[in-house]
Amino acid sequence: MFFRYTKVISPLLRPSFARPAKYFSINLPKHRHTMSLPELQWAQVAEKTGGPLVYKQIPVPKPGPDEVLVKIRYSGVCHTDLHALKGDWPLDTKMPLVGGHEGAGVVVAKGNLVHEFEIGDHAGLKWLNGSCLACEFCKSSDESLCPDALLSGYTVDGTFQQYAIGKAAHATKIPKNVPLDAVAPVLCAGVTVYKGLKEAGVKPGQTVAIVGAGGGLGSLALQYAKAMGIRVIAIDGGEEKKAMCESLGAEAYIDFTKSKDVVADVKAASPQGLGAHGVLLLAVAEKPFQQATEYVRPRGSVVAIGLPANAFLKAPVFSTVVRMINIKGSYVGNRLDAEEAVDFFARGLIKAPYKVVPLKELPHIFEMMEQGKIAGRYVLEIPE
Amino acid sequence: MFFRYTKVISPLLRPSFARPAKYFSINLPKHRHTMSLPELQWAQVAEKTGGPLVYKQIPVPKPGPDEVLVKIRYSGVCHTDLHALKGDWPLDTKMPLVGGHEGAGVVVAKGNLVHEFEIGDHAGLKWLNGSCLACEFCKSSDESLCPDALLSGYTVDGTFQQYAIGKAAHATKIPKNVPLDAVAPVLCAGVTVYKGLKEAGVKPGQTVAIVGAGGGLGSLALQYAKAMGIRVIAIDGGEEKKAMCESLGAEAYIDFTKSKDVVADVKAASPQGLGAHGVLLLAVAEKPFQQATEYVRPRGSVVAIGLPANAFLKAPVFSTVVRMINIKGSYVGNRLDAEEAVDFFARGLIKAPYKVVPLKELPHIFEMMEQGKIAGRYVLEIPE
Amino acid sequence: MFFRYTKVISPLLRPSFARPAKYFSINLPKHRHTMSLPELQWAQVAEKTGGPLVYKQIPVPKPGPDEVLVKIRYSGVCHTDLHALKGDWPLDTKMPLVGGHEGAGVVVAKGNLVHEFEIGDHAGLKWLNGSCLACEFCKSSDESLCPDALLSGYTVDGTFQQYAIGKAAHATKIPKNVPLDAVAPVLCAGVTVYKGLKEAGVKPGQTVAIVGAGGGLGSLALQYAKAMGIRVIAIDGGEEKKAMCESLGAEAYIDFTKSKDVVADVKAASPQGLGAHGVLLLAVAEKPFQQATEYVRPRGSVVAIGLPANAFLKAPVFSTVVRMINIKGSYVGNRLDAEEAVDFFARGLIKAPYKVVPLKELPHIFEMMEQGKIAGRYVLEIPE
Amino acid sequence: MFFRYTKVISPLLRPSFARPAKYFSINLPKHRHTMSLPELQWAQVAEKTGGPLVYKQIPVPKPGPDEVLVKIRYSGVCHTDLHALKGDWPLDTKMPLVGGHEGAGVVVAKGNLVHEFEIGDHAGLKWLNGSCLACEFCKSSDESLCPDALLSGYTVDGTFQQYAIGKAAHATKIPKNVPLDAVAPVLCAGVTVYKGLKEAGVKPGQTVAIVGAGGGLGSLALQYAKAMGIRVIAIDGGEEKKAMCESLGAEAYIDFTKSKDVVADVKAASPQGLGAHGVLLLAVAEKPFQQATEYVRPRGSVVAIGLPANAFLKAPVFSTVVRMINIKGSYVGNRLDAEEAVDFFARGLIKAPYKVVPLKELPHIFEMMEQGKIAGRYVLEIPE
Repeated sequence: MFFRYTKVISPLLRPSFARPAKYFSINLPKHRHTMSLPELQWAQVAEKTGGPLVYKQIPVPKPGPDEVLVKIRYSGVCHTDLHALKGDWPLDTKMPLVGGHEGAGVVVAKGNLVHEFEIGDHAGLKWLNGSCLACEFCKSSDESLCPDALLSGYTVDGTFQQYAIGKAAHATKIPKNVPLDAVAPVLCAGVTVYKGLKEAGVKPGQTVAIVGAGGGLGSLALQYAKAMGIRVIAIDGGEEKKAMCESLGAEAYIDFTKSKDVVADVKAASPQGLGAHGVLLLAVAEKPFQQATEYVRPRGSVVAIGLPANAFLKAPVFSTVVRMINIKGSYVGNRLDAEEAVDFFARGLIKAPYKVVPLKELPHIFEMMEQGKIAGRYVLEIPE
Repeated sequence: MFFRYTKVISPLLRPSFARPAKYFSINLPKHRHTMSLPELQWAQVAEKTGGPLVYKQIPVPKPGPDEVLVKIRYSGVCHTDLHALKGDWPLDTKMPLVGGHEGAGVVVAKGNLVHEFEIGDHAGLKWLNGSCLACEFCKSSDESLCPDALLSGYTVDGTFQQYAIGKAAHATKIPKNVPLDAVAPVLCAGVTVYKGLKEAGVKPGQTVAIVGAGGGLGSLALQYAKAMGIRVIAIDGGEEKKAMCESLGAEAYIDFTKSKDVVADVKAASPQGLGAHGVLLLAVAEKPFQQATEYVRPRGSVVAIGLPANAFLKAPVFSTVVRMINIKGSYVGNRLDAEEAVDFFARGLIKAPYKVVPLKELPHIFEMMEQGKIAGRYVLEIPE
Repeated sequence: MFFRYTKVISPLLRPSFARPAKYFSINLPKHRHTMSLPELQWAQVAEKTGGPLVYKQIPVPKPGPDEVLVKIRYSGVCHTDLHALKGDWPLDTKMPLVGGHEGAGVVVAKGNLVHEFEIGDHAGLKWLNGSCLACEFCKSSDESLCPDALLSGYTVDGTFQQYAIGKAAHATKIPKNVPLDAVAPVLCAGVTVYKGLKEAGVKPGQTVAIVGAGGGLGSLALQYAKAMGIRVIAIDGGEEKKAMCESLGAEAYIDFTKSKDVVADVKAASPQGLGAHGVLLLAVAEKPFQQATEYVRPRGSVVAIGLPANAFLKAPVFSTVVRMINIKGSYVGNRLDAEEAVDFFARGLIKAPYKVVPLKELPHIFEMMEQGKIAGRYVLEIPE
Repeated sequence: MFFRYTKVISPLLRPSFARPAKYFSINLPKHRHTMSLPELQWAQVAEKTGGPLVYKQIPVPKPGPDEVLVKIRYSGVCHTDLHALKGDWPLDTKMPLVGGHEGAGVVVAKGNLVHEFEIGDHAGLKWLNGSCLACEFCKSSDESLCPDALLSGYTVDGTFQQYAIGKAAHATKIPKNVPLDAVAPVLCAGVTVYKGLKEAGVKPGQTVAIVGAGGGLGSLALQYAKAMGIRVIAIDGGEEKKAMCESLGAEAYIDFTKSKDVVADVKAASPQGLGAHGVLLLAVAEKPFQQATEYVRPRGSVVAIGLPANAFLKAPVFSTVVRMINIKGSYVGNRLDAEEAVDFFARGLIKAPYKVVPLKELPHIFEMMEQGKIAGRYVLEIPE
């Protein structure tokens, strides 16, 4: 546990919110709340910002009174993990850092205050590892806005290790019949797009335009939309993505690489030509963030989810006012959104293509990611 | 009636929606539905875009089957009227044009299909003179978004004349105990800011920041907010406006001409320093439209109402997403909003300072307006 | 037209709201707005309350300025039509009366103020034939609550005739590729259950219990729920209904004729055993109206739609309060609900079993209805 | 602490949710998180259901890791406390029991996981002493529906003692400038009626009818409504209550002891005679619970809050459906509601008449309560 409870460098964390080190060993009746656990485990560790990653043995952490220890079986790899390693964002990471925030596994230990999980339950750890549960935002079920939120694989260690810790209140229950490898990407990508669709306020029978519908987030968004009774106009580039979008149920596909007028084409594909009721922005380029207000329906919502570097939302005041357009940002889901997103998956309504590789291969995955060579999601198998 | 039913030049208007000329004289049983009316009336007429205004006699128009004829007693003068005269906006006006869209008076004639008004009732004519009542937006109580909306003093003749026509469905009932001069500005300015407060989603007990709180719209917004149980942070410039804002009940006043850090000051004035729950943008400059997202609370709404020329809303994608900010436009109110706004006024909760001058003086008012010399609202008294 | 404009007996109707008789012949340019029409038509006429129905020729009515004349091709038969004939309800019908309120056909004439329909368009006439469009409820898109609503086949003549009139604002557009016989029952039964699902506030992924899921309304409700992403617990009696509910996608079927504890069984079938998120009451008996609050989830909504004679909603104050239960009534849909319900149907998501018989057979249908011998919907073919 | 952690008899409580006894002494660094505390304290203890109350010394309890210990300065006395003592309700109390659930005081100790309070902060303990924060309802900010909720003075010891414990997440922060005696009744009565007004969905400018407006809950409801911009029709009996309701700002007063037709009178007092937009039922008799649906506006909400013994909500299916009435129960507020209710009070908008008596006098207060002799709220002063 040499690095878990060292100085927390993020200014977001109140010192007093650090996890108390002594609860576990004193108070936990071992025969009831834990299985026999090793002292050491394998992990991918970044010892300084920029890396490199070191695959090595580190101590198995011990849960505080309100935490669970999850034996991770699979963890998705997200572009955010690469950003964390490279220190791309204005928010500092802890260091040394174990990354990863799409982990699925088995609860093997828990603190005395934890009642929502039993040892042996399947659980997911996601981006939001914990929050204060006491601020205005936590009290409004908007935990992602908590100023004291703990972020997996960023401000606390994540899921690129055999045993990871999560605040029990934020861990996601996973039914035992759900395969742990397939559900891993749902815990981040799935929840995020599901939340975005809710934020868009698009109702069953109405139409959403999804920018980037053929990508990893996009193909999930398309399936969630369909499962929610929402019709989809897919926007992306190329024939391959067209084929995929149509096979997943998109009613129209606008190829921005070929369209002479994306705005006109989206409107033409929408009911009465009035524009889409909502737009989900999953793109990695800035342009769609400024164009979407033109093809959204009056009174419609443009929801930004993707985070292209240094990008801005921009729209003329005049048309935004007289068309009563809504431009908003949607971050990750709350605790209930996560359970709902998993439930849609558990009912067989969502398929996400993924490849499984061993945890050891993570540096190679990051390499491919940097070269833009990844299609679909990589899921790491964590050694038992 | 020589210019009322001439060619309608706005592309917004379907030809078939023009008012049928023959209903009135044939079908209206004169003894029941009308008073004895003159053939001619005084009006301020713009014969071509850019003016000048000609004060002259024109025929008294006759209501179609679903219309009322209102003997205007008072009409507010709004900056929009000047824009219409000068042809400042992308949307064409009819010509020749009688401007004005804040008229209050007495119903003196009505068509056969009109049941909601009796002869002698007091009524207000506002910006939205009529709409199709049949499109998706009209069916959703968003008549201002109707593609076939008729705009008073813009695409149809307005209230700078003795007798003006309105679609009965859109005329606003005014209780007889409400003074017609004082209520005139409520019909446009009042309704607009009241609608904006509703769109902001700020609840009683929460806080709204009003940019331009000391101006005409702003002082009305401040009073509506207070009447709705909402707390106000007023943002404007100068000591005079400070005094007025505080006398109207603002809990804080941020002077942008003196503040070293408007963002920090607004946040400091807000509950827990987290920012205002909503922001109303009534300013005529672009800067606040891009700054407001910084001092709005996470999950809060920035509502654009003012229409500075060529201005843009602009916000970083990253902070908009992770703070889940909502940026939206609010246009004029719907029919119910207008009645509610008048009701607040009728209950004595809203005071709007205004000066009454004769209709003949309109060109002079426009002159002062162009010179930026107007404080408060001018209300024209229409000769009987 | 001998009975259309005779004394209107319903106290709901303001005299001044009666349709003006003279507009049509004078103002309608026949070559543009109408086809050549016969003077007489066949209709099923009730000349007094209690009947009998007389199949005879009556004049073809002429539309007022805001009305359409629809050549009815098919009309569903609803239990309400029988109630109207027999005078079962506290609200008076007009007499003589042509019943029917699920009519689909072709617009063959229209008044001068009608822009939303062209001659030749397909249109549906439903229970809400017209409303004032000016009261608080009409202005809030709750036209069904309008105190001056016109009811097809009840306070105005309905669709059991070759040519029927509707207020244009309330007629429902039907795309030309939609079969007019199949869509007829959607105009009443479909809209009503679709509205009920919206009123229940059940979201995609959540669970609704439908009481009477195997009946005519119920099987439509089940399909709408599924199309909206909502999971269904079907409650009804017998193996045949079980088979149908399951084939339509119900996740569980509770047979109230066999269950020893309906409340326990519904809860067991619901997520986490906490009860259904919403309940739709389509039953014709009183018991479920008082039982549903026991198996609805805390914070859930019990929505009454069915109208068993003299029945009461009843629930203990204590459990309603501490479980924060919502009990509400849902009447017919508004104008937009109707279009949306038809759109779901047009997209092939809703199938309603029905049998087509000639208009002449109506008395026989009523006979079977009184004997409780009808399964599915009867649709009358109207002679050309 | 001899009775705090004894067997908890309520079936609502999972055994594992009981508070762990050993955290406090081992882990709490005394110099930081606590003041010097006595071993024993004075309390009013019910040793068996039915009483009597014994005023005696008991151990001072020690907070668990997620709890605060509050030195109670004042505690309101609520009728619920009497019900708890007498065992009137279907839900078992713990025994022996220290009652009380409207306590205001100072945080004097806290567990290691508590970050939202500092020693010395002012805090309120209310009916909802704690909840699991992990169930579907807690995750939706509906903690009052948590099946594992801890209830102050009912399933855990309450505020009729010098030192009381609350889960930190549920304790309400009280600004230091707020007098602790006056705020005590706000913590239960105030929050409850404020929540009810929110649940009623009545908007600023609309009208709520309050049944029992002249009582303790009612006079608070009236003031909250006014502070929220809502207009009030007060319903109660007698001239004294009339005077009070009018002085607090009611626009109309209906005296049910004198009115010949309460329904007609409420409607007459409402806008356009259409009925109140919402109704708050604070009465202790059953009749208004069945009558309110008659004078609520179509689409309006009747909100039950009061809990008359064995009472039922009852309404005809027919009129509930065609008027689209909403009948619902509202329980206590969530954590945010409590803070908001206190904030309204702190801003001087709410006055609640109360009398202060020493804790020792509690049996006498209960006596008067049983005799129906209490007007206004009694607040106990807890000895230092």
